[in-house]
Formats: sequence, structure tokens, C-alpha cells
Amino acid sequence: MRELGIELPPAARPVASYVPVTVGAGLAFVAGQIAMEDGKLIATGQVGKEVGIEEGQALARRAALQGLAALKDELGSLDRIKRILKLTVWVACDGDFTDQPKVANGASDVLVEIFGDAGKHARAAVGAPSLPLGGPVEVEMIAEIG
Amino acid sequence: MRELGIELPPAARPVASYVPVTVGAGLAFVAGQIAMEDGKLIATGQVGKEVGIEEGQALARRAALQGLAALKDELGSLDRIKRILKLTVWVACDGDFTDQPKVANGASDVLVEIFGDAGKHARAAVGAPSLPLGGPVEVEMIAEIG
Amino acid sequence: MRELGIELPPAARPVASYVPVTVGAGLAFVAGQIAMEDGKLIATGQVGKEVGIEEGQALARRAALQGLAALKDELGSLDRIKRILKLTVWVACDGDFTDQPKVANGASDVLVEIFGDAGKHARAAVGAPSLPLGGPVEVEMIAEIG
Repeated sequence: MRELGIELPPAARPVASYVPVTVGAGLAFVAGQIAMEDGKLIATGQVGKEVGIEEGQALARRAALQGLAALKDELGSLDRIKRILKLTVWVACDGDFTDQPKVANGASDVLVEIFGDAGKHARAAVGAPSLPLGGPVEVEMIAEIG
Repeated sequence: MRELGIELPPAARPVASYVPVTVGAGLAFVAGQIAMEDGKLIATGQVGKEVGIEEGQALARRAALQGLAALKDELGSLDRIKRILKLTVWVACDGDFTDQPKVANGASDVLVEIFGDAGKHARAAVGAPSLPLGGPVEVEMIAEIG
Repeated sequence: MRELGIELPPAARPVASYVPVTVGAGLAFVAGQIAMEDGKLIATGQVGKEVGIEEGQALARRAALQGLAALKDELGSLDRIKRILKLTVWVACDGDFTDQPKVANGASDVLVEIFGDAGKHARAAVGAPSLPLGGPVEVEMIAEIG
């Protein structure tokens, strides 16, 4: 990751009574991540309205990196990740917006950049009228761990 | 649970052609639960409109307990649950509502009350324009079992 | 499947930087599927508006079959599927639509037709304001494999 010039942001603290990562049955489940900086949301609103597609991609990328930061906190090292198995990406939007995949690519691409083939995952990208705290994009992850 | 004064509601029957719980690969998957009583939804509508946040929390709590009831039916005993790994909580709402985490806490908190550390889970809380039968909150669960 | 007169459609190519299926920890994760034919969406719009319930069911069924086609491509044979564990079905709709379960049955029923008891799965059906490319229904699947 140093070679790629990618630095992990601090892991975000859950906004409620749950934990960032759980581990069981050979899997790690990462809680839904919303792009934050200094304890605040980087942006709010719906993609396609208050937030542009490129900004949405950057937020998805940031959320994915926060997820990795949470995994690193829990696992000690990202080397224990054997495969990123699944991503779900929710994009806050109204009924006219259909570019959820483009937005979600911000998250998908950075995982492949970092992990190569082991970063290639199955994915569902979907719309939502709104997300926690007004976040434009939420990313959750399931990884296989060793 | 008796000491906590928590009683499991009857497991809700699926409203369609699927089953309440499946088990495989060391995991139990619990179908999306909507708070019901006597075979009817306890409430309908969007949270933030027809349904208040506290009511939404109570519905989330009830849905989580229904999920545990379904697990108990399938597993014979809740003692086989090693860890609640993941919760997804959908909150029916419009684009202005951003308190999905508060609503979802109704489900999260009761799991931690019952299971302690083993009840601490990763979670995604998200909005949806509407949910099955008009339910305000839907909760699904993945548990590690032994 | 031949006896049932069910034929698998071609596996759809992901519309973005991810893969159709990942395998790990005894599970196969199938990416969100939207009903396509000849590389194009079969229908677009919200169910309950541009798309009727029966049409939505047919799209859900088709999406589930595409998921199986993707599993077959990855696993070599559907015989490696021990159990369909979980389906998530997103239905594009507005706040008034509450028949997500009926739509999702299109996916659930065909899996039980094909696999019998091993096709009986836990499920969450939920609404979304919109889905990738304007698709009316998106189906994702988790299977236990041997």
C-alpha cells in the first residue's frame, strides 16, 4: 500500500451500540462504513443531487479504506485477509438515479488496487432514500480470513 | 433471559416461499424479520412520519427477538449461538430521515443485553422507501453457531 | 432442470469492477443480479408503476437463474451447491408499494423448484428507490458449497 501511495484513514467509531468488525466461521464482517474525517461526515445528501458521481466515488473509496482500517485494528494485520468476498454498497438517491455501479466502483477499485486478485469481490450496489446521518454512500464488507 | 425479564415472542411465519432460518458452513442466516403480533404487523408506515423513533426502536427490538425465536426453533437452544456476527436493519423512511442508527439500536441493544459480548455484532443500518407489508423496520441476522 | 423445462440464461457480465461469484469459507457469494437479455436490461422502472407485480416476479426469477448460471461458471457444476442459504431481493419502488415478498417469490420459487429442500433459503425482501441501470429487481445469493 505504501508503494501505491494509499494510506488508511483512522477507523471510524460506530455511531451506535455495535462493533466495527466481527470474526467467526473463517469470515470477518465489517460494519457499514460512511466516509468520515475528524469524527464528522465528509459529505451528506443524495448522490445525483447534493453530491456528484465523482464525489460519490471518492466517498465510496474512503468508506472502503475505513473498512480496511477497522479490519486491521481487529486482525492485527491485513495479511490475514485471504479474500474480499462481498461488498454491499448503498447509494443515497432518488428514483431517477441509476448510476449506483459507478459510485460503488470507488470502493471496488481501491480493493483491487490493494489486494489484486484477492481483492476481487462479489458485489451488490443499490439505492436507498437516505443513509445514517445523511451520508451519501455506505459500504459493508465480508472478507475471508486465515 | 428470565432474569432480564425478556420473553421471546412466537417466531413469525415467513410471508412467502422461504424459511425462517438456514444453517450452513458454521453460520445461521435468519430471514428478514418485521415486528408482528398475533399474525399481524404491529405497525406500518415510514419512521419519521407515521411511526416515531422510539416506536421504531421498539419494533426493531421486537424483530430481533422474533429472529432469536426463529433461531431457537431451528437450533433447539440459543446456547448453540457462539456469536451474533452481523445485523442488517432496514428502516422505511423518506430522503430526509437520517436516524436509522437510533432505530437500529433497538435491535442491537437487546442482543447485547441477552448475549453480552457474544451479542456484539457488526451492523449496517439503511433506509428503504418501503418494506414488506408496509412494515416500518426489518431486521436480518447472521450468527455463528457451534 | 431439463425435466422441469428450466434452462439457464447466460451469466450476466458485471457492470463494473467486480466479479460474479466469490468462494471462501465453504460459501459462494453471488453478486447482485438484474434480469438481462442479450446484454441489455429486460425492463427498467419501479415495480408498482412502470412494471407490474407479475412482471417483477418474472424478472426476479430470471435474476435468480442468472445467479445460478454464474455459480455454474465458477463451480463447474451446480452439484457442488449443498444449500441455498440466503437471498436478498431488492425491489425498486416508491413508499406506497408493499408487495416486495410477492415479487421476491419469483426468485425463491424457482430455487425450490430446482433444488427442492436444498433450495429453501432465508430471505430478506426490501424496497429501494432505484437500482443499477434502472433495473426493477436485484437478487443476490449466498450458497453453501461442498
